[in-house]
Amino acid sequence: LIDCGEGTQMQLRKARIRLSSINNIFISHLHGDHIFGLYGLLSTLSLLGRKSPVNLYAPEAFEAILKVHLSDFDIHLSFEINFIPLRSKDPVTVLSDKHVTVTAFPLKHRIPTFGFLFREAPRERNIRKEALAMYQIPVHKILSIKKGSDLELPNGETVPNDLITFPPPEPVSYAYCSDTQYFKKLSALVKGVTVLYHEATFSAGEKELAVKTGHSTSDQAAAVARDAGAKKLLIGHFSARYKDTGILEKEARSVFPETYCVTEGRYYDISNLDTF
Amino acid sequence: LIDCGEGTQMQLRKARIRLSSINNIFISHLHGDHIFGLYGLLSTLSLLGRKSPVNLYAPEAFEAILKVHLSDFDIHLSFEINFIPLRSKDPVTVLSDKHVTVTAFPLKHRIPTFGFLFREAPRERNIRKEALAMYQIPVHKILSIKKGSDLELPNGETVPNDLITFPPPEPVSYAYCSDTQYFKKLSALVKGVTVLYHEATFSAGEKELAVKTGHSTSDQAAAVARDAGAKKLLIGHFSARYKDTGILEKEARSVFPETYCVTEGRYYDISNLDTF
Repeated sequence: LIDCGEGTQMQLRKARIRLSSINNIFISHLHGDHIFGLYGLLSTLSLLGRKSPVNLYAPEAFEAILKVHLSDFDIHLSFEINFIPLRSKDPVTVLSDKHVTVTAFPLKHRIPTFGFLFREAPRERNIRKEALAMYQIPVHKILSIKKGSDLELPNGETVPNDLITFPPPEPVSYAYCSDTQYFKKLSALVKGVTVLYHEATFSAGEKELAVKTGHSTSDQAAAVARDAGAKKLLIGHFSARYKDTGILEKEARSVFPETYCVTEGRYYDISNLDTF
Repeated sequence: LIDCGEGTQMQLRKARIRLSSINNIFISHLHGDHIFGLYGLLSTLSLLGRKSPVNLYAPEAFEAILKVHLSDFDIHLSFEINFIPLRSKDPVTVLSDKHVTVTAFPLKHRIPTFGFLFREAPRERNIRKEALAMYQIPVHKILSIKKGSDLELPNGETVPNDLITFPPPEPVSYAYCSDTQYFKKLSALVKGVTVLYHEATFSAGEKELAVKTGHSTSDQAAAVARDAGAKKLLIGHFSARYKDTGILEKEARSVFPETYCVTEGRYYDISNLDTF
């Protein structure tokens, strides 16, 4: 779960996402619209009797705040919180397992704020069905072949790996950048990302206001996507002044055509960009 | 506004209640489901540029907590909060203006918790239309006649007030009791209330669990309404274990027939009990 504004638990329920499936919570910064749903979510997980720990990645100041707050509000969680403090000025890998690697990197906002880059781990190669039969591949060799080994036949011959396997789909990645003002280095931090979520609080004409408040304009978000070589750009976090966010999408598309305004409750599949 | 759980600002918007119309916020106790929407609501009021102060009635410990929290989350409100601490063991009038008198009184829960009794101020008498013409009542006498004065005619005669006026509708009242376990004295504290809202977390068979957790059963809520001589009872705060709350309503009605389970988003008019 990335950020947890007020009402997140209701939205999760509406989207039929099981609360118990959330094991890692990433908090970009300590402004209310990114965190005021966290206490409620943690309380509900506890009411549901959760036992396994939750990994919480957040700006370092939050560890003490959370502790005081849980005590102030008489909350006794049924599970542990494993707090991973964010503080570095450089990108840091905060989570790496067989599925995903997550890097946190600093953004440029009014208070310490972090972006997150999620890179899917490379999957193993797939063995061609016909090769299994043709070479009578024994079960105990499957694992090493999937990792790229060649096959040695009983007669001493060697079959090169790429004859008996085909490559897995390209790993996908997702970057979340909110809240932040524009800075040139950001595109390098998310270089080659599949899908970039970037805030676009203001329209292109409001660059001064954007800098003043630590936010970005639509065309700045698009410039980051373009310079990073992203495949798709999702923009959101629009100022309430824009009744019609179509104008922001249009501005962004003039810089990066594959831009989409996020729609509340919609499902975007980063492994299937046709869902955008 | 009485209590402010997570998502309150969204619910208010859904109900088309103007956020700016809220001047008094009453917080019963410092458990998350009664307060986690407050930070978001205050932040939004500030974003909307509110200038006039908000009166906040809450258990005394909350004053310090709120101050720290606003600072932790970098919230700079555009308006003042006038904090009225609740701490007394006896009923205390915390607000009294020309419309309403509000009394706070202690409930019996796991942490300091307060109920609230809202009593509409008696309205002025209404002058009969035909009397206005018949006695040529001068404008400057209207105010005192509405307050009950007799009318002195130019010829020295006196017309008694009840000949030229009729009484206003009976003032109504509303009491909010959540969360609390059952205690006998509660019905005296809300004696004669028009509409009682009382929690009914558990069904009648769970009295032990109710006491242990500081909550009430459906029939206990009904007993309070009956002993107070209330006109209607609203029950709510049901444990999630009850998929069908009809059973709780049925149990309560066997003690106090005019019981209704609250329905989210429904509008109940305490001046028009036909809306129940």
